[in-house]
Amino acid sequence: MSTTSLSLDDIQALAQSALVANGCDADNAGAVADIVTRAERDGSHSHGLFRIPGYVKALRSGKVNGNARPRLSHRSPAILHVDGDGGFAPLAQATGLSALADAAHQIGVAALSLTNIHHFAALWPETEFLAERDLAGIACTAYMPSVAPAGSTEKLFGTNPISFAWPRPGKAPVCYDMATAAMAMGDVMIAARDGKSVPPGTGLDAEGNPTTDPALIAKGVLLPFGGYKGSAISLMVELLAAGLTGEAFSYEAAIRDNHDGGPPRGGEMVIALSPALLAGPGWEDHVEGFMDRLTALEGVRVPGARRHANRKDTGPRAINAELVETIRALI
Amino acid sequence: MSTTSLSLDDIQALAQSALVANGCDADNAGAVADIVTRAERDGSHSHGLFRIPGYVKALRSGKVNGNARPRLSHRSPAILHVDGDGGFAPLAQATGLSALADAAHQIGVAALSLTNIHHFAALWPETEFLAERDLAGIACTAYMPSVAPAGSTEKLFGTNPISFAWPRPGKAPVCYDMATAAMAMGDVMIAARDGKSVPPGTGLDAEGNPTTDPALIAKGVLLPFGGYKGSAISLMVELLAAGLTGEAFSYEAAIRDNHDGGPPRGGEMVIALSPALLAGPGWEDHVEGFMDRLTALEGVRVPGARRHANRKDTGPRAINAELVETIRALI
Repeated sequence: MSTTSLSLDDIQALAQSALVANGCDADNAGAVADIVTRAERDGSHSHGLFRIPGYVKALRSGKVNGNARPRLSHRSPAILHVDGDGGFAPLAQATGLSALADAAHQIGVAALSLTNIHHFAALWPETEFLAERDLAGIACTAYMPSVAPAGSTEKLFGTNPISFAWPRPGKAPVCYDMATAAMAMGDVMIAARDGKSVPPGTGLDAEGNPTTDPALIAKGVLLPFGGYKGSAISLMVELLAAGLTGEAFSYEAAIRDNHDGGPPRGGEMVIALSPALLAGPGWEDHVEGFMDRLTALEGVRVPGARRHANRKDTGPRAINAELVETIRALI
Repeated sequence: MSTTSLSLDDIQALAQSALVANGCDADNAGAVADIVTRAERDGSHSHGLFRIPGYVKALRSGKVNGNARPRLSHRSPAILHVDGDGGFAPLAQATGLSALADAAHQIGVAALSLTNIHHFAALWPETEFLAERDLAGIACTAYMPSVAPAGSTEKLFGTNPISFAWPRPGKAPVCYDMATAAMAMGDVMIAARDGKSVPPGTGLDAEGNPTTDPALIAKGVLLPFGGYKGSAISLMVELLAAGLTGEAFSYEAAIRDNHDGGPPRGGEMVIALSPALLAGPGWEDHVEGFMDRLTALEGVRVPGARRHANRKDTGPRAINAELVETIRALI
């Protein structure tokens, strides 16, 4: 794979230009470009520029509103809702997350439901936003069906990611973001693009047979991680992201989507919890005692540590050259 | 294994008698006996009478307060706290769950932290309580270290169960309760008692080697379900159950415990969410559309369905005869 060296500013500008050239206004393009740049900065290539062609497809087909004006409302002191106005998720998130953090600081726990959005990015930016403000965060979203519930060979669940973050004042937070599929479809797609195989248990082909060929899995079904227990977590994500927001379940998203290759309309649920209010003074030291034990174990990595280490490098990033050319051709 | 046939009333009376004979007052014994009976009713033997000898050990050693008077307080309209007064968890739960449900109905989301309790039971009674009141529920607790974080061979996490329930008005809720260990230690103990082996990946022996012998795993470490993803869920449970309550992490519980064989002091976190407030009118039908798709899949079982089916049988239960004799000898 040949690569092109791009600074983080170059990455941001490339994403912004591609989105603006295809109908996004500056606010919507900026919010998406910011998320894409932070993914590349952290080494999460599958949520970086790799997603731009899909974002552009959704703009070109008219499915997504590039001029969305998300609207925030309070349904109670602890319940916030953002109607994303049919746009991409990042501007809707930027509209709601500060209010969510404020509510959680005041009342101890708060929930933000996002509807009428198109989510095509990582979830850690949402939970990390909360953790940077001394809150624990949980975020979930559904997608289009690609995962067979445990015991089945038919897809019903989305890859259904869940993100969790825990604040560590003065340190990088604990923060993970993982598909409840055995592998994220983004990573399956990258493996297929790069001609690599994937581990057994990742998925089934279109006939329901096990395979390690990511291209066949992309046409078949993914499996949940961890068998029926992982399937139970995926079910929880589907119910929180769709049942609790009132937005589309993965199967509904697929029925309603125009299949332009961009993200379908869906919902997201973000929950924020205040350790200061729940556990009271001294919670930081109490948790650091536990984290000291965790990090002292040989072979254990704090979730998010690799991303946070990558982030310290502010230099240019090596981006797939073919991808860069593809994106430039969209401008 | 020879069995003794006991009615549900017999089971309740046996549990109650064993607890009262060892220092519980009627309220505390009744709350525990109720939880134990519901577990046997639902076929969850590992959380039924099997636990009574451990409860009794904790009373006899003086570790647990059999006359606990749990105290409920509101830290905000959405944050409830129950100090369990050093008793077993069930009376503390009974003290806080109705208020939690009321808060979630009013404000949409609420959290209940329980501290100074000794939890030795299933978690589904808590979340099912919420689901029966049209709320989604999440509950977590930690325990003593028995699980090695992914990548490690040293135990740090408890079996760290998580329970999730989703309401289905007029139907049994979706409700699961699972250890984030590959197997619950209760089930490992039952397998060891019954001389059965356990699946590969369940745990390691005391030297860190893989084994399928549950007796060796009981002296070694369990592994998380689903590799590093399951380990991430277990970490979330530990942080919610201890970091967010301010109560003992699993490792702290072990340091402080008197190792009498009964449950250590710990905390529990229960979160309740209102679909009616979050998703709005029509949420039930929306979710049932999804549930129809899920239940139509061959090979898929709704979490909790087996327990709810067992529950319909109000007749006597076949209980391990040796266990019944052991408990009778404690009275």
